[in-house]
Amino acid sequence: MIELIQPLVVPSESKIVLLSSDGLAGLPRPETGKSEMETARIPNLDRLAAQGACGLLRHVAPGITPGSGPGHLGLFGYDPLHYLVGRGVLEALGIEFDLRAGDVAARGNFCSVDDAGLITDRRAGRIPTDVCVRLVDRLRTIALPGVEILVEPVKEHRFVLVLRGAGLGGRLSETDPQVLGKPPLSVRALDAASERTAGLVNAFVDQARKLLADAAPANMVLLRGFDQLPDLPRFPEVFGLRAAAIAAYPMYRGLAKVVGMDVLKTGGTFADEVATLREHWQSYDFFFLHYKDTDKAGEDGDFDAKVAALERLDAAIPDIDALKPDVFVVSGDHASPSVLAGHGWQPVPVLIRSRYSGADPVTAFNERACAGGTLGIMPAQHLMPLVMANALRLTKFGA
Amino acid sequence: MIELIQPLVVPSESKIVLLSSDGLAGLPRPETGKSEMETARIPNLDRLAAQGACGLLRHVAPGITPGSGPGHLGLFGYDPLHYLVGRGVLEALGIEFDLRAGDVAARGNFCSVDDAGLITDRRAGRIPTDVCVRLVDRLRTIALPGVEILVEPVKEHRFVLVLRGAGLGGRLSETDPQVLGKPPLSVRALDAASERTAGLVNAFVDQARKLLADAAPANMVLLRGFDQLPDLPRFPEVFGLRAAAIAAYPMYRGLAKVVGMDVLKTGGTFADEVATLREHWQSYDFFFLHYKDTDKAGEDGDFDAKVAALERLDAAIPDIDALKPDVFVVSGDHASPSVLAGHGWQPVPVLIRSRYSGADPVTAFNERACAGGTLGIMPAQHLMPLVMANALRLTKFGA
Repeated sequence: MIELIQPLVVPSESKIVLLSSDGLAGLPRPETGKSEMETARIPNLDRLAAQGACGLLRHVAPGITPGSGPGHLGLFGYDPLHYLVGRGVLEALGIEFDLRAGDVAARGNFCSVDDAGLITDRRAGRIPTDVCVRLVDRLRTIALPGVEILVEPVKEHRFVLVLRGAGLGGRLSETDPQVLGKPPLSVRALDAASERTAGLVNAFVDQARKLLADAAPANMVLLRGFDQLPDLPRFPEVFGLRAAAIAAYPMYRGLAKVVGMDVLKTGGTFADEVATLREHWQSYDFFFLHYKDTDKAGEDGDFDAKVAALERLDAAIPDIDALKPDVFVVSGDHASPSVLAGHGWQPVPVLIRSRYSGADPVTAFNERACAGGTLGIMPAQHLMPLVMANALRLTKFGA
Repeated sequence: MIELIQPLVVPSESKIVLLSSDGLAGLPRPETGKSEMETARIPNLDRLAAQGACGLLRHVAPGITPGSGPGHLGLFGYDPLHYLVGRGVLEALGIEFDLRAGDVAARGNFCSVDDAGLITDRRAGRIPTDVCVRLVDRLRTIALPGVEILVEPVKEHRFVLVLRGAGLGGRLSETDPQVLGKPPLSVRALDAASERTAGLVNAFVDQARKLLADAAPANMVLLRGFDQLPDLPRFPEVFGLRAAAIAAYPMYRGLAKVVGMDVLKTGGTFADEVATLREHWQSYDFFFLHYKDTDKAGEDGDFDAKVAALERLDAAIPDIDALKPDVFVVSGDHASPSVLAGHGWQPVPVLIRSRYSGADPVTAFNERACAGGTLGIMPAQHLMPLVMANALRLTKFGA
C-alpha cells in the first residue's frame, strides 16, 4: 500500500485531523441492546457522520484483537501484519525512553526465587514502585564489554532493559518460564545475528542474580519481549505531510515518534490537547490527536464511564471543527467493549468528513450505523490513502 | 491465516456449534422477487440473526462457484485456493473409503468403445449399479507389481480406483478425452515423483480393456481426477478444539476426517444428527453439524422443496439452541439457487450469535438482509478466527 501511495503524493495546502479515540468500539449492554456509542448522546460526532462517509475499520484481520501497537500502526497506514513492534520496544516507548535504531529493548519483571533458584512469585509480590527504583539503581552498576546497559524503572515490579551498541540482535527467547517452581530460562538467540547479544543478556542476568541476592522478595529478574525498533518507512516522507502527534499518554507519543511524526508537548487533559492543536495549526498539515478515556473506561469494564467519556469527547468536537480541517477523520485503534473489560476484535467505526467524502447514508456515529456506510468494512491501513485522497493530496494512478 | 491464529489460541470452556446448511443461499424466484430464504418462514433463524452479527461468506473468490471440497475447507478455516482436494479423493471420501496418506485415488467411469477402440459413450449408457458392482469385481483381479489395487463401485457407471503402496505420486493426466470418437488417452506423469505411478495406471487400463472386452456397453474405463490426500494442518491442533463432525452424508464426514475432526456415528436424518449432538455435548468443544436438504432441493431446481427444507431446518434450531452453545454459527458451503439447479457463485449468508457478537442491524436471515450486516462480505476462511474470538479462545495480537 505504502509503495503504491508514495509516488502518487502531490502537494496541497489542505489540513487533516485524525482523531483516534482509543478503544472506541464497544458492544451492546444486554439490558438495552445498545452499545456505548449507541447509548451516548454524541450530536457533534453524529453530525460529522451525517456530513461525511462512514464505515468500519478492521486493524489486523477478522477475529483478531489488536494490541495498541498494531492498532495504531494500522491507523498510520502501515500493514500491522508486516510491521511488528515488540513488547520491549512498546514498554520503552511507554516511558518515553529515547530508544534508538539498533537498541535491543526488553520488558523486565522483578521476581522472587527460593534458595534453589526456583521462581516462587513472577511479580515479586508487586513491590512498590519506589523499591523498584532502588533495585534498578543496583542493576545500573552492571557493566558488560562492548555494550551500554540502560535500565529504567516502570511501575511496581516492572522495568525496561535496553542494550545499546554496534552489532546487536533482538531475536532472543524469553527468560520467563511462565510457571512457578522452575528456574528462569537462559536466553537463546533465535538467529545468528543475535548470538552475541544472547551471551550479553545471560551475563546481565547472572550479575543481576548476585546483586539482588539479599533483596527478597525481589531477588531475581525475568526478561521478555526482546525487540529492536522496527525499520518503518517514515510517515512524513511516505505521505508528504508535515505531521504532528498530540497525545497525553507516552505510549502513543512513542508510536508516533517511531513513524517519524513530530511529537508536540501537551498537557494531561484532552482540553490541553485541543489547545495544543490550535496553537500549532499553522505549522503542520496532519495532526494525530489521541483520546485515551474511551479505552480506559472500556478496559475497566465500566459501561457508564465509557458513555460519559464519549460524551466528553463529543463536547470537544466543535472546538476542533472550528479550525476548519479540510479532512476530519474520527476512528480508533481497536475496540474496548465494556462487557469484555479489555481489547476486542470487533471492527471500529470510522468517519471521514471532507468536501469530497461523498454521498453516504449514515447519520449516526456508532457500530451498527457505520456498518451501512459507503466505506464498508476495510483494513485500517487503507484509511490513510482515503484520507490523502480526500485532502486532494494524491494524483491518479496510471495514465 | 492459520499461521496467524495458531499462536494466539488460548484455552476456554466455551462450546461452538457450526451449522452448515448445504447450498444455503439462493436467488429470487422471478414471480415474487424473493429468494428461497426470503420466502421461507424461519422465525428461529431470524431470531438468531437478530441476536447475532451477520454477513455474507465468499468461499473462493467473486464469481467462482465452489465445489463441496473448497466450500467446506473454507468453512473450516482453510484457504480453498491453497488447500485443494482432488476429485478422486472427494469421490473416495464420498463412499467412506478409508483413504490413507500416500494413496492415489481416481474417479473412474465405465464407458463404451467401438471395435477400433474409439469412445462411443463416455458413461456406458449409465449402466445399473448392480452391473457396475459385477464389473468392479473383474477389475479387482488386476495385480500389479509393488502396489495394491483397490477398486470400489459407486453408482451407475462410476467407480473409485485407489493405488496403495510406497513412493506413489498423484500428479497424473486424465485418460478421458472428453469427446466421442477418440480413444482413451494414456496417463502422463505431471511430475517426476509420479512417473512410476503413471506406468502402473497405464498397465491397469490395459488389463481392464482385456477383462471388459465382452462387457459392452461397459467395455472400457476412463480415469480422471487423480490425487492424493492433501497434507492439511489438523483442525483440532490449529484451533485447540476438541472437534466433532455430525453429518449423515459420507462426503462431509470424509471432509471433516481429512482435517482431523472426530466423525461421530449418527443416523440418516437431521433429527438423528441433533440427537447425536446432544449425546456428545460434554465431550467436545466444537461441533460441525451438516444439513443436506437445502442443497438437494436447490440442485433439483425445486424452489418450493428448498423453502420447505429451510423451514424444517428452522424447526430444529430451538433443540440445538437449548444446549446453550456459547457460539452458534449458521452458514453454508456454497449457494444452490433453485433457478440454477446446481451450485452457484453467490455469497452465502452467515450469522454468528454469541454474547460478544456485537451490535448489528440485521434482523432476518437471508441474502438481502445479511448484505447489510457488520460482518460484511468476507472470505469463508476468515469465519473460524471470528468464531474463535467470539468463543474467547484467542488472545490479542501484538503488545
